Amino acid sequence: MPDQQLKSWIEVAPDSDFSIHNIPFGIYSDNNVKHHICSAIGEYIIDLFELESADLLDMNRSVLEEQYLNSFIELGKTETNRVRQRIIELLSSADSILKTDKAFFNKVFKKQSDVKMLMPVRIGDYTDFYSSIDHATNVGTMFRDPANALLPNWKHLPVGYHGRASSICVSGHSFHRPKGQQKPADSDNPVFGPSKLLDIELETAFIIGKKTEMGDNVSTGDADNYIFGMVLFNDWSARDIQTWEYVPLGPFLSKNFASTVSPWIVTLEALEPFRMKGYEQVPQLLPYLQYTGEKNIDIKLEVFLKPKDGKENLIIKSNYKYMYYTMEQQLAHHTVNGCNINVGDMMASGTLSGPEPHEFGSMLELTWRGTKPLKLNDGSERKFVNDNDSIIIKGHCEKNGMRVGFGECAATLLPAK
Amino acid sequence: MPDQQLKSWIEVAPDSDFSIHNIPFGIYSDNNVKHHICSAIGEYIIDLFELESADLLDMNRSVLEEQYLNSFIELGKTETNRVRQRIIELLSSADSILKTDKAFFNKVFKKQSDVKMLMPVRIGDYTDFYSSIDHATNVGTMFRDPANALLPNWKHLPVGYHGRASSICVSGHSFHRPKGQQKPADSDNPVFGPSKLLDIELETAFIIGKKTEMGDNVSTGDADNYIFGMVLFNDWSARDIQTWEYVPLGPFLSKNFASTVSPWIVTLEALEPFRMKGYEQVPQLLPYLQYTGEKNIDIKLEVFLKPKDGKENLIIKSNYKYMYYTMEQQLAHHTVNGCNINVGDMMASGTLSGPEPHEFGSMLELTWRGTKPLKLNDGSERKFVNDNDSIIIKGHCEKNGMRVGFGECAATLLPAK
Repeated sequence: MPDQQLKSWIEVAPDSDFSIHNIPFGIYSDNNVKHHICSAIGEYIIDLFELESADLLDMNRSVLEEQYLNSFIELGKTETNRVRQRIIELLSSADSILKTDKAFFNKVFKKQSDVKMLMPVRIGDYTDFYSSIDHATNVGTMFRDPANALLPNWKHLPVGYHGRASSICVSGHSFHRPKGQQKPADSDNPVFGPSKLLDIELETAFIIGKKTEMGDNVSTGDADNYIFGMVLFNDWSARDIQTWEYVPLGPFLSKNFASTVSPWIVTLEALEPFRMKGYEQVPQLLPYLQYTGEKNIDIKLEVFLKPKDGKENLIIKSNYKYMYYTMEQQLAHHTVNGCNINVGDMMASGTLSGPEPHEFGSMLELTWRGTKPLKLNDGSERKFVNDNDSIIIKGHCEKNGMRVGFGECAATLLPAK
Repeated sequence: MPDQQLKSWIEVAPDSDFSIHNIPFGIYSDNNVKHHICSAIGEYIIDLFELESADLLDMNRSVLEEQYLNSFIELGKTETNRVRQRIIELLSSADSILKTDKAFFNKVFKKQSDVKMLMPVRIGDYTDFYSSIDHATNVGTMFRDPANALLPNWKHLPVGYHGRASSICVSGHSFHRPKGQQKPADSDNPVFGPSKLLDIELETAFIIGKKTEMGDNVSTGDADNYIFGMVLFNDWSARDIQTWEYVPLGPFLSKNFASTVSPWIVTLEALEPFRMKGYEQVPQLLPYLQYTGEKNIDIKLEVFLKPKDGKENLIIKSNYKYMYYTMEQQLAHHTVNGCNINVGDMMASGTLSGPEPHEFGSMLELTWRGTKPLKLNDGSERKFVNDNDSIIIKGHCEKNGMRVGFGECAATLLPAK
């Protein structure tokens, strides 16, 4: 059980995502550092490479200066959990050398606002699921048949598909509105141009922490040993390109122009205190998808739209608890055919919508295909995302005075090239 | 123009895939070598690392002992084409040191039968297209409507989707029949078990040779500068899993349990002499998909089914020339939205079928959903692939006495685990 009384000798604001209960992992750079593994506490990053220069972590230091977390994660959960616990100990122990040696403190701790966070992992394969029942129902209602909004397979398996890893960027980037084929309703032929219906998708994703060999499968009961942690994820989507291209093999150019991840991987261990019961799953699933225990997680999610030089508008307030399928079920399904997974693979939730309109996870749903535009605090309206808008996803867990959060997953849409 | 009179002082059988006009690239290992880049001539591999030990290639030797070809390919076409031409020179020049120094010859040349070919590239992202009009028409006829077999988008863009890179294996491997959900026609609910309809897909693939940045696109006219070369590809598919899972986001577990590539990357330069005119594309495509010149390629393709301890049965005789969309169009489409590509990415053709029944590229089509079983030379029948069957794809170009081939793309299906 986590020690709720645990306190860091570094002051942490009550609304900080980076309490001593979190201790996530990431990669940072600044003028002096090309890339070091770091953790976070309050408004600081903790440079683990520098921490180990005083042998405080008792590990191979070279892993801590790699470009990505992959090698660190490959050390295994026993080791990465030990390192995380060691950091918690150093931050909570009253006689920590970090507390007493000011020069050393300044080498190890840097203000988050002074560093640049980099892509945390080298993603091998990226999979996107479609596991939110409210999202699937909304989309099915809009595009197919309200009476049969869910396709026949939906309640029997976590539908998923493969996505493009190359264009996944870390929070803070910008990208150009994609161009592509769209088929106007009043035309026999497609036209080419910038997407007019550029959308967001509120998602989370988990990062694989342990590889399997081809032919092996991971059970729901063992899945947590293969999940290193979670990130926030925005699966940007061009709806007009998607509608025209996606039959029969699924979305392609409508998704692969850009996706955004948050830079901190919050470990599954840090999220454990916030587990909760999920949706009841009826009809009963096949045995390989059944699980025991509370496997959903209470993660409060918010999405903000910020026009250029404007203010943040809260446009979505939702929760990860609305997922119909758990990560453990997604991973069991993904591997039940013997598909092998590698450390650094990323598996995303799919657009996450809750039952209430303000919990819908895409502009498509929020504005109901553009029929109910959002009103922003500057008086303007949005049906979809405008050029130069920034989208910021935030997420955190909070319970019994413990707060564990993800920081931001932010990106800006530039005009088409 | 290639010199058709070019001859190697090493004897090359007339039916060898590895004439002096080919000079492909791959990675091999044996008892003494963990992994070296190699080329091939006749029945030999040529160890390029050893060749460079006598400074015969005038390049950075360390690149030649990497696990994958990626760094070599990243040197750029100017350099890799120079190396290829240099090898051709060494193999054709009468006074080559290789010819005169027997000890050196034995260090550099090894019998192909004595070495193991490894995975040639570290694949970043893998994309599969759906660009054979005969295949798409067959599938549309079987599963939808013979009168409207092609979906409305098919003749306007090369439909494609993302696949799983982790389970792509080099020729010579075996894998277990996948298990998964299937929905029998006479049941309301899905069942779980080994796939009963395990299929092959005859494909080729091209390997990206030059990266782009997000936001950039590659025109059809410039595409060949981004294509390093081609391989043979078998996109194993579990049809019963596919039918149940694939709506609305495309195939997933029905494809990602295993795929097979041939070990030699045949360069685009070696394939140039075999270019030919492709299908007429009507209706006219949007400008970004139009191209000039002869961009299809005359590659003769054969697929053999070999039961355990049995003989090879030729089950497909087809040709790459039947592709409706060219590689140049596929790449232009893939990048037109700004999607970035990396060296080592793999883009596959999609199942390649010709117009005649013996040219169909899958068991699904060959046996027309199992209604017309194939008769093998041992008297047995096949509707789909049986346990312990091996599937071997072969491919080569031949023209004016020049032969350029791919070797084999072979794998064996083991019983479900």
